[in-house]
Amino acid sequence: MINKLIANIQKTNAPIVVGLDPMLGYIPEQILKAAYAEHGETLAGAAEAVWNFNKGLIDATYDLIPAVKPQIAMYEQFGIDGLIAFKKTVDYAHEKGLVVIADIKRGDIGSTSEAYAVGHLGKVEVGGNRIAAFDEDFATVNPYLGSDGIEPFLKVCREEGKGIFVLVKTSNPSSGEFQDKLIKSEADAADRPLYEVVGKQVAKWGEECMPGATDGKAGAYSNVGAVVGATYPEMGKVLRALMPHTYILVPGYGAQGGKGSDLKPFFNADGLGAIVNSSRGIIAAYKQEKYAAFGPEGYADAARAAVLDMREDIAQGVGL
Amino acid sequence: MINKLIANIQKTNAPIVVGLDPMLGYIPEQILKAAYAEHGETLAGAAEAVWNFNKGLIDATYDLIPAVKPQIAMYEQFGIDGLIAFKKTVDYAHEKGLVVIADIKRGDIGSTSEAYAVGHLGKVEVGGNRIAAFDEDFATVNPYLGSDGIEPFLKVCREEGKGIFVLVKTSNPSSGEFQDKLIKSEADAADRPLYEVVGKQVAKWGEECMPGATDGKAGAYSNVGAVVGATYPEMGKVLRALMPHTYILVPGYGAQGGKGSDLKPFFNADGLGAIVNSSRGIIAAYKQEKYAAFGPEGYADAARAAVLDMREDIAQGVGL
Repeated sequence: MINKLIANIQKTNAPIVVGLDPMLGYIPEQILKAAYAEHGETLAGAAEAVWNFNKGLIDATYDLIPAVKPQIAMYEQFGIDGLIAFKKTVDYAHEKGLVVIADIKRGDIGSTSEAYAVGHLGKVEVGGNRIAAFDEDFATVNPYLGSDGIEPFLKVCREEGKGIFVLVKTSNPSSGEFQDKLIKSEADAADRPLYEVVGKQVAKWGEECMPGATDGKAGAYSNVGAVVGATYPEMGKVLRALMPHTYILVPGYGAQGGKGSDLKPFFNADGLGAIVNSSRGIIAAYKQEKYAAFGPEGYADAARAAVLDMREDIAQGVGL
Repeated sequence: MINKLIANIQKTNAPIVVGLDPMLGYIPEQILKAAYAEHGETLAGAAEAVWNFNKGLIDATYDLIPAVKPQIAMYEQFGIDGLIAFKKTVDYAHEKGLVVIADIKRGDIGSTSEAYAVGHLGKVEVGGNRIAAFDEDFATVNPYLGSDGIEPFLKVCREEGKGIFVLVKTSNPSSGEFQDKLIKSEADAADRPLYEVVGKQVAKWGEECMPGATDGKAGAYSNVGAVVGATYPEMGKVLRALMPHTYILVPGYGAQGGKGSDLKPFFNADGLGAIVNSSRGIIAAYKQEKYAAFGPEGYADAARAAVLDMREDIAQGVGL
């Protein structure tokens, strides 16, 4: 799947993933009104609004971008109805040729992680059938439980050619509370922060999931990627060197404070190795002064304009 | 909610939570057959089997136990249908007076954790309405992202009187890979493993969520609990002392290797402070030699017998 993601990035010339995190506050009034008129101010009404909002965003941007990243929490908060909207979004993005990175941040003990892995990336056995339930392409995974929580994901990645991005250094302000703690070295080398210890392990897990390249040469990148926040470029630099074959999913650009000029350390010399997420900076662009002329009716066109600007900002900042 | 859990524990004299982790391999043939006859070997068929299996288990044990802990991954693997079965299980357990600990292990950056917190424990705003989507009583939470991923859960706990259990030291074999890493002390004190650093923080978070006791005295335990595996009793002893007002959810008993005699360190001198989970040891008891006489038709009665044996084993091991 990493090869498909890279092909999409090269085709669009945009190492960009649009975060489909449809909080109701981002959704234009006309979409909310129509959904509530049909379903009332209910979970079904909210889910219908979310789905219509997403459809407009995908229609307006799919030719410019390689991938979308729906954040499942924003759907799960509306219960079953919300999760139906999540699944419709995944399927529609696939119809449009997009890679779907499901931001689910799951992770558990072995047998439980296996259920998450087959449910989201693989196929679950029911009697004599093997059925894909959610069928995303990549999933984000939390490493706190260690290798036996990750192995079932690696297995599904190998079997189904899917991928994961493991949390290493997250973009949020308090990510350092545990992730930056200095770990006593087991050898006599210098002490290392936890995120480096995790990053090194991610690179190791990644060795088990190197896909062959489509042209017959060994692919340069693993199906096991890492999440490293744009808000921590110095740490990104260290992690980039520590995980040379690991694709980095970079959240935190835009609304969270990351700028194009912060992104260079996340990329390799081949111009690849990183894909940058923006969520509200794109999907709620019409709310920014810069794109206000589009108005709520033009929210999808505003998102398209914001993608083009982000592509330019990254190209300049990274020197692609 | 911790007061309700404690009241239920005292009423049943059983610090036991039954893990409703219904893998298809645990479900007796007659239940699978009936569900597949109606829905085919589909996700809907699997979900129907899961729900009927759970209903039988709850009916057979609800008067003996304070709480159930459905592991959402086992439902999520069957997609939307599976999550409908999850929600039916939560609601049915509530009807029977049980506390529901949703084993969801969620955790993300602030705004996203908020969506998980309102979706699972609180109420989501849709227009002028506030609606509970999943409406569990407790949720398990992953701490890797630090305080701003936990705060939204604390807020919902305070507002709705709900609770969380934060992963500290998990029961699985590789939990030590990151959780046991020695952290360099910031003062001149001794170096501490990561799980102690997390445990200390859990106790701190817990101070913000101390409910008053129903009889007017301050409650002794916080609505913020911790997960510490039965498989690591020595670490449980240290964590028990470090988090005196924290209820400990103890997985890993039974099938994972934890025994009644391992459990004493997790309890306080008041005989409270811990609730022990068993999943397959109870819900698939009929597959063990000890309970084989019940047969697949008697799976629920076998579960009841296993609960009674577990209560006895804990009472002896802990000296309750």
